[in-house]
Amino acid sequence: MKRVCVVIGSRANYASIKSVLEAFQTANEIKLQIVLMGSALSSRYGDIGVQIEQDGFEINYRIDSLLENSLPSTMAKTTGLTLIEMATCLDHLNPDIVFTIGDRYETIATAIASAYTNRILVHTMGGELTGTIDESVRHAVTKLSHLHFVATRQSKLNILQMGESEEYVHVTGCPRIDFVKSALANVEDSNLSQRINEIGVGSSIDLLQPFLILALHPVTTEWRLARSQIEISLQAAEKLKLPTIVVWPNADAGTSEMARGIRSWRETHSDHNFRFVSDLNPEDFFQLMSKCSLMIGNSSAGIREGSFIGTPFLNLGSRQSHREFASNTTHSDWSLEEILTKARIMLEKGPFETCNLYGDGHASKRIVSLINDLHPNIQKRFEKRQVIT
Amino acid sequence: MKRVCVVIGSRANYASIKSVLEAFQTANEIKLQIVLMGSALSSRYGDIGVQIEQDGFEINYRIDSLLENSLPSTMAKTTGLTLIEMATCLDHLNPDIVFTIGDRYETIATAIASAYTNRILVHTMGGELTGTIDESVRHAVTKLSHLHFVATRQSKLNILQMGESEEYVHVTGCPRIDFVKSALANVEDSNLSQRINEIGVGSSIDLLQPFLILALHPVTTEWRLARSQIEISLQAAEKLKLPTIVVWPNADAGTSEMARGIRSWRETHSDHNFRFVSDLNPEDFFQLMSKCSLMIGNSSAGIREGSFIGTPFLNLGSRQSHREFASNTTHSDWSLEEILTKARIMLEKGPFETCNLYGDGHASKRIVSLINDLHPNIQKRFEKRQVIT
Amino acid sequence: MKRVCVVIGSRANYASIKSVLEAFQTANEIKLQIVLMGSALSSRYGDIGVQIEQDGFEINYRIDSLLENSLPSTMAKTTGLTLIEMATCLDHLNPDIVFTIGDRYETIATAIASAYTNRILVHTMGGELTGTIDESVRHAVTKLSHLHFVATRQSKLNILQMGESEEYVHVTGCPRIDFVKSALANVEDSNLSQRINEIGVGSSIDLLQPFLILALHPVTTEWRLARSQIEISLQAAEKLKLPTIVVWPNADAGTSEMARGIRSWRETHSDHNFRFVSDLNPEDFFQLMSKCSLMIGNSSAGIREGSFIGTPFLNLGSRQSHREFASNTTHSDWSLEEILTKARIMLEKGPFETCNLYGDGHASKRIVSLINDLHPNIQKRFEKRQVIT
Amino acid sequence: MKRVCVVIGSRANYASIKSVLEAFQTANEIKLQIVLMGSALSSRYGDIGVQIEQDGFEINYRIDSLLENSLPSTMAKTTGLTLIEMATCLDHLNPDIVFTIGDRYETIATAIASAYTNRILVHTMGGELTGTIDESVRHAVTKLSHLHFVATRQSKLNILQMGESEEYVHVTGCPRIDFVKSALANVEDSNLSQRINEIGVGSSIDLLQPFLILALHPVTTEWRLARSQIEISLQAAEKLKLPTIVVWPNADAGTSEMARGIRSWRETHSDHNFRFVSDLNPEDFFQLMSKCSLMIGNSSAGIREGSFIGTPFLNLGSRQSHREFASNTTHSDWSLEEILTKARIMLEKGPFETCNLYGDGHASKRIVSLINDLHPNIQKRFEKRQVIT
Repeated sequence: MKRVCVVIGSRANYASIKSVLEAFQTANEIKLQIVLMGSALSSRYGDIGVQIEQDGFEINYRIDSLLENSLPSTMAKTTGLTLIEMATCLDHLNPDIVFTIGDRYETIATAIASAYTNRILVHTMGGELTGTIDESVRHAVTKLSHLHFVATRQSKLNILQMGESEEYVHVTGCPRIDFVKSALANVEDSNLSQRINEIGVGSSIDLLQPFLILALHPVTTEWRLARSQIEISLQAAEKLKLPTIVVWPNADAGTSEMARGIRSWRETHSDHNFRFVSDLNPEDFFQLMSKCSLMIGNSSAGIREGSFIGTPFLNLGSRQSHREFASNTTHSDWSLEEILTKARIMLEKGPFETCNLYGDGHASKRIVSLINDLHPNIQKRFEKRQVIT
Repeated sequence: MKRVCVVIGSRANYASIKSVLEAFQTANEIKLQIVLMGSALSSRYGDIGVQIEQDGFEINYRIDSLLENSLPSTMAKTTGLTLIEMATCLDHLNPDIVFTIGDRYETIATAIASAYTNRILVHTMGGELTGTIDESVRHAVTKLSHLHFVATRQSKLNILQMGESEEYVHVTGCPRIDFVKSALANVEDSNLSQRINEIGVGSSIDLLQPFLILALHPVTTEWRLARSQIEISLQAAEKLKLPTIVVWPNADAGTSEMARGIRSWRETHSDHNFRFVSDLNPEDFFQLMSKCSLMIGNSSAGIREGSFIGTPFLNLGSRQSHREFASNTTHSDWSLEEILTKARIMLEKGPFETCNLYGDGHASKRIVSLINDLHPNIQKRFEKRQVIT
Repeated sequence: MKRVCVVIGSRANYASIKSVLEAFQTANEIKLQIVLMGSALSSRYGDIGVQIEQDGFEINYRIDSLLENSLPSTMAKTTGLTLIEMATCLDHLNPDIVFTIGDRYETIATAIASAYTNRILVHTMGGELTGTIDESVRHAVTKLSHLHFVATRQSKLNILQMGESEEYVHVTGCPRIDFVKSALANVEDSNLSQRINEIGVGSSIDLLQPFLILALHPVTTEWRLARSQIEISLQAAEKLKLPTIVVWPNADAGTSEMARGIRSWRETHSDHNFRFVSDLNPEDFFQLMSKCSLMIGNSSAGIREGSFIGTPFLNLGSRQSHREFASNTTHSDWSLEEILTKARIMLEKGPFETCNLYGDGHASKRIVSLINDLHPNIQKRFEKRQVIT
Repeated sequence: MKRVCVVIGSRANYASIKSVLEAFQTANEIKLQIVLMGSALSSRYGDIGVQIEQDGFEINYRIDSLLENSLPSTMAKTTGLTLIEMATCLDHLNPDIVFTIGDRYETIATAIASAYTNRILVHTMGGELTGTIDESVRHAVTKLSHLHFVATRQSKLNILQMGESEEYVHVTGCPRIDFVKSALANVEDSNLSQRINEIGVGSSIDLLQPFLILALHPVTTEWRLARSQIEISLQAAEKLKLPTIVVWPNADAGTSEMARGIRSWRETHSDHNFRFVSDLNPEDFFQLMSKCSLMIGNSSAGIREGSFIGTPFLNLGSRQSHREFASNTTHSDWSLEEILTKARIMLEKGPFETCNLYGDGHASKRIVSLINDLHPNIQKRFEKRQVIT
């Protein structure tokens, strides 16, 4: 019986892995262990633990390691603190396999703790090109991982280029799409409107009428611009004259500046038509994405989940500039005029067809089956490949 | 004036970078900052700080972060602790460029701290293939670095394959070879023999007579074998019946087991002809390499510096199994018989010609010149290349 | 020339020590070093660094170590992280004397780092009895300190009882009162009203009319009650029908619950007459205390600074229950009725005469003079005293 | 059922608490939890975990947190790192009561983690006066503890003086004496001689002939003198011309200097009559104390356990200068002559009668009974007492 330790570092991570947790829990040969850390435990960003337990999972360990300030150096410190405690956690739980997701500080901390304690490391969402420091971190995690379950064909090619063995890189689709598929199956949930209007602050939103979603996160390499970026986005949403759901930014360098921008805007626009939400659960978020007229921002959800849902998404700035995208996504620079022009075109065109670029909703089955079948050696090998330069 | 912060994490790091420090110190446009951390400050392995100051450098910051136990999880914790303090250090020194060396926990800690604080990261000794966890860490550091100054042509190809930009990968040769060249220029130093016999414990060694060097380090993925590996090595040296200088193992998972093996052997072989040294400075080490009849072990020095010096080197086990080597190196498995047979052949053949595989002794000039000329963007780009799979 | 390192861990700390910093800066024999840490650097609670530099001081080192969650275990972790970095900081700055203030996690972290690195530790605000975990921490710091500069005669007796040497315990008065005195000298500052109405959110407040101050902080041993305590307080203020300045709670276990209570109240009372402020500088706070009709809450300021200013203060609950108080303070339990009754009586009576219970405004001169004159041995001695039990 | 978490931070701690662990394990109302940390897990000083498990206890959590260097600042860092991980451990184990022993960095780290997480803290070995930083740390722990189980009447008086409630301070005797009593019951163990001569290095010792024990530890406030202190002690033992068992010093600031002194002495005195032991288990140590002709050094064991065993003990220097002692102890300064003179007098006089100053061997029963009966409030109260100054 293999002990498989899945590390959840944020609310977003949980949606990215829930279908896999369910598949692990029913697999005979696997003993599931769940570790929560970092912003997954943040009371400010919403401790996801209660919901995970309500969903029927046992949380085996919690590492409360998120520093308060959202400055560059505090992100590094959060990584270090998480790494220290993750080493003790791994001694305590002694898993055979560690499962890490994505590209944030919890991910690299988990990867290093696993690498030095000689455990098989599995990584999902690797190989994607996106810009920002997250991309460098994602590739560094790839070079520490033994098994790679990727979303797209291009991601697989990128990982092979980096010298990983073909045997251990598999296009399973992203398990997040499994989650989206299941959330959309409940899309007629009549309580969504009520929940949205109970959480957060601001105007009440009628989900039966056209509305926008604004989901903007700080770009760590541009954190000094965070405030002006949120301000332009809020202005754009205001000028489009549609009720808008504003999603609170991720914990990252630049978050404080954004938060200050939002608070200040709120105080000076008492008659706005905006609702500010920070405790949105992902099911509700995906349902909103399937109902909204347009989503604006730089959240990867617009590109990744949006391609499956068919959400019209106007992607702002550099944060997702290198990411693969389907026809639902249009790009814009930080010009208010460009944003408004493109947004108006998209509002006229309406929703898109579903696209399987990032997965077809069956990733978790493939992953659990591959975990059982593959037995990578703890000593990795760099595959030299002939490169045409 | 650029502030360039060079991070030294071990005694070995100092030899790998001293010629670059000298070149930085005389460069007009550069303000040199030196940070010491990890095993560079270890009283057990030899605090290198005193010597660095004697060599005329100012140490700007010290991070004492090495945990006592040499277990897998403590290596992870040392990394985390170093990372936390390095973040504060970078806030304090505020360098434009951070310079990190090699592939150990100090290296990855430095790389992550630099990445999250948006500094240009320069890496030396990247792209080499060696086996062990150090190789994975080395490649992860490559994916976080902006400039790569590598030792060999093959290393450059490996780094290009991993998606780095050709503009920022340069075969400068390893600055460690600069150091070797300068150390050998003083090879007639008449006090070497005296120094060797003052430090360490055990028999006195006559350097004018044939002698062996044994330099074995633990393999982190095989740390449970560390004790048997040192025991076979000591037996081999004993049976070759030559006076032997035994170099104390590096701080790593498995070191304690090796140390225990050495202590136990020493107690039970009172009539041995061995000298055990742990505070050997690198100049003396390279001079010994140029004088010894044979070097045995798994130290990269045998392959890398040995190729330049011409030292006959018998490489044991997997630790260096993928590393590029010149004609001075022969490989052996952990069989006492194989070790003895191959050692005897090498002892007959004698020393080799110098070879520039890892550098020609002029790396530091090239590096300082490139640091001034190159201005990589803080946002890295993955270069997709056509790979023949 | 003695190097004296003053550690500032919060906005409150700065007001408690500013007059001493000024006196150190002009003292010939003293080289002042300033370290900022913990919530003093929090962007959420207000980084005090900018103001310290504007006041003409150089900040020698910053330790960003505050964890995001305000749970009991994160307070312990913040202490540990601060302690680790403070040890490196002390190696770096190498002070002869370390100066720590009060009773919070930064204080105990500083005290332990100083104790283990064999430095003379000076403590202000020791010996006071207050309840809460802060009291235990304060006494623990006393047992690690070499010099004690206390506010009141009773504090001195308490410290002597604990076994400290009489030679090293001095009633200087609290330097915070120096700061109050100087802030009140500028009380006719015509811009106060403008500043108050620029910072924070909520109603505009007319300082020429009667108004309340509400300053409530979580009690760490009662952190689960934090939300109901803030709710009762807000209700009381509402029923007293006076404009109210609500001060944002300190970073501590329970802060998140209080913050949530405040946010929720604000959303459901759109017609309130409250102003919520979190970036209030201490000068302005003391001026407000001199102008308000009544202050309510559990802030020590009501008792300590209030006694000097003459502010009518209604102290709620257990947080300050054992603290020495002057005639300006009345106590109430967590009963809305009791609070309202006592508040109304105090509103009728009006302000009090100044009282020197906690200091006369000349503490800093005494402290600097004593620092120069006293030379405690690094090895402390427990003074056994005859106790009547 | 109360969860009682006993924290063991060193080999010495285990002997100090083993009898209590046994009593907890058979108590119906108590669920025992054992945490190992710091030097208890050190491979250099001897991981005590294996023995604890052999003795039939389950270890619930391990915190590997000891830094490698034994410098003042690394002691502070070890404290900080232990504190961080202890906070997570307490969240994980969720004990009602935490049990901490003595006065070292593990002790204060445990105390602070317990204090901030609102747990009842029980402290043994408090109130003793000894000199060194350990004394200050011990008193600081007292001020954070709710229950105090002390060894001597004077310790109780000291703790009462410090303001603790009489109800919660009990002279139970030290549970270490329980352990000594039980170890001495097996004193005719015929394998002791064999074990002593198998562990450690140096001459073989005949326990049937007169022999010395030398047990010297560094004084943290005098760590720069550590090397000269060990050298004088070794000289004294040599001049007394009796076979000597030299106990390896504790992990502390100054240990490296002492270790270097011992190693150097060993190399230059090849004909010595000394045995150097570092993995001595406490049972064997107490048996040796009951057989030796004289014990020299500054170990508290000489004074505390020695008083019960009747071992003639010559106490060197300041480390134990304020500790209560029985007639078995004589004091000497760091003068070789004084040491030799006093040692020779003691050697003539021979062993002493047992004395119950530090306990009668029944502490554990009293402690478990008191843990069940006492229910201190989490909020401590300072008891003001009338002091005659």
